[in-house]
Amino acid sequence: MGTALAAALLAAGHRVTVWNRTARKADGLVEKGARRATSPAEAIGASDIVIVCILDYADVAPLLSDDGADAALKGRVVVNVTNGSPAEARELAERVAGLGADYLDGGIMAVPDIIGQPQAVVLYSGAKDAFEAHREVLDAFAGSVYLGADPGLAPLNDLALLSGMYGMFGGFLHAAGLVRSAGGNVTAFTTELLIPWLRVMADSQLPAMAAQVDSGDYGATGSHLAMQVSHDAIGDVSRAQGVSTDLFAPLWELMKRRVADGHGAESVGGVVELVHPREPRA
Amino acid sequence: MGTALAAALLAAGHRVTVWNRTARKADGLVEKGARRATSPAEAIGASDIVIVCILDYADVAPLLSDDGADAALKGRVVVNVTNGSPAEARELAERVAGLGADYLDGGIMAVPDIIGQPQAVVLYSGAKDAFEAHREVLDAFAGSVYLGADPGLAPLNDLALLSGMYGMFGGFLHAAGLVRSAGGNVTAFTTELLIPWLRVMADSQLPAMAAQVDSGDYGATGSHLAMQVSHDAIGDVSRAQGVSTDLFAPLWELMKRRVADGHGAESVGGVVELVHPREPRA
Repeated sequence: MGTALAAALLAAGHRVTVWNRTARKADGLVEKGARRATSPAEAIGASDIVIVCILDYADVAPLLSDDGADAALKGRVVVNVTNGSPAEARELAERVAGLGADYLDGGIMAVPDIIGQPQAVVLYSGAKDAFEAHREVLDAFAGSVYLGADPGLAPLNDLALLSGMYGMFGGFLHAAGLVRSAGGNVTAFTTELLIPWLRVMADSQLPAMAAQVDSGDYGATGSHLAMQVSHDAIGDVSRAQGVSTDLFAPLWELMKRRVADGHGAESVGGVVELVHPREPRA
Repeated sequence: MGTALAAALLAAGHRVTVWNRTARKADGLVEKGARRATSPAEAIGASDIVIVCILDYADVAPLLSDDGADAALKGRVVVNVTNGSPAEARELAERVAGLGADYLDGGIMAVPDIIGQPQAVVLYSGAKDAFEAHREVLDAFAGSVYLGADPGLAPLNDLALLSGMYGMFGGFLHAAGLVRSAGGNVTAFTTELLIPWLRVMADSQLPAMAAQVDSGDYGATGSHLAMQVSHDAIGDVSRAQGVSTDLFAPLWELMKRRVADGHGAESVGGVVELVHPREPRA
């Protein structure tokens, strides 16, 4: 990913200095015009903006304290796109601020192949002035989205998007199991039916559900929960077809719990109250 | 839904005869030009194609055996869009064939509001000749997709699409819980980040995963399972934020099971083997 980011900066005409613990990994970038630094401190000292992209968040702080690196940071902007948690991002932001530098945490919503392409997105949180001052540089990577001053917002939204993706993958895997159990072609099902269907359902249902989560008013506009759970057709047919309901049952159970709790006339959006209740837990 | 279907036929210029157990429910359609039948037999006798849309599948066969209805069916086409299971569809198809009529089972992938609009889809399975002969009539409802001669295919694919939708809803609910736990606006997150992200992930990942399910070759092209499950960032951050992992944990557990089973170098698509194994269970 680091290579893809540096290549995107070079392609956009920026002067780039690179450092990698394994120096030869930067050979391709040097061929494309990057300068090679021999230490983190040298790389940091070469530019106003320092992009950190390594495997483990735990290694970021030691890297920024490497021989002379901490002194070199003063007055610069650290953009850390290493995957971490909101708490890790906040801790690192404090440390970087303590060294006199601005901090932006970045969550890259893309695989390396699509860096620099229009569908790539990078989420940023932290120092707003630094984001605005360097936005043109950052836009070389992807569409840049600034989420707020709390450095933890980028990793939190990053993980939220990933959890949404895994949910969709889980739904796909169950659907694929059902189609395969009947001898169907999963590729045709997926490209001709499932993807268009998910697109229509995402566009038509998710914004309304999101508004309900924000307002706390889960009144059903279409089919309400009690009607939906009145007959477990997906579960029954899955079992008849020898398809595990491991991926489907948890949502179904939460929907039934909402009905049992007296919310049968509401919509499925209210299930969020069983995921993260609006009021603090007693 | 029955009203929406009949209205779409009227709007397309077809002659429509309607029957409902509660006669006044058809008043609006009669105003729009439909003829009102006083019995199922009269409705069946009025047209070459008979659309059945009621609440319970169990009531369809009795309806088609109502006083004189079974005799009236001979030579016609029954298109039954009542929700049911593949087994119910096959049983009804045999019964209808026994009365000398053709049978098509239909799975409506739309809410009544969008019947007749381009994004609506109806899945059909059963008598292919009947589908082709009456396709123009059926196209008044939605995009018509013929899946095959087995009458069970429409309900099976219908339920597979619904299970895919519920998976996406589950992912949304977890993501919404995470965003809300950090005080974020779920509507902005959903419309600006999640929906575009799911679209990119669906288009870029699902066809490749589907091809793997069809081929049984789950070799990872991008990040492999062992790498993905090496750190449960979503679970850890969810727990730290007080967000239940009920909707996320099941897929995670199956991914870990695949790694434990020796498939760590493969992609997430291989999880389908734990949902519906390729080879029959021992």
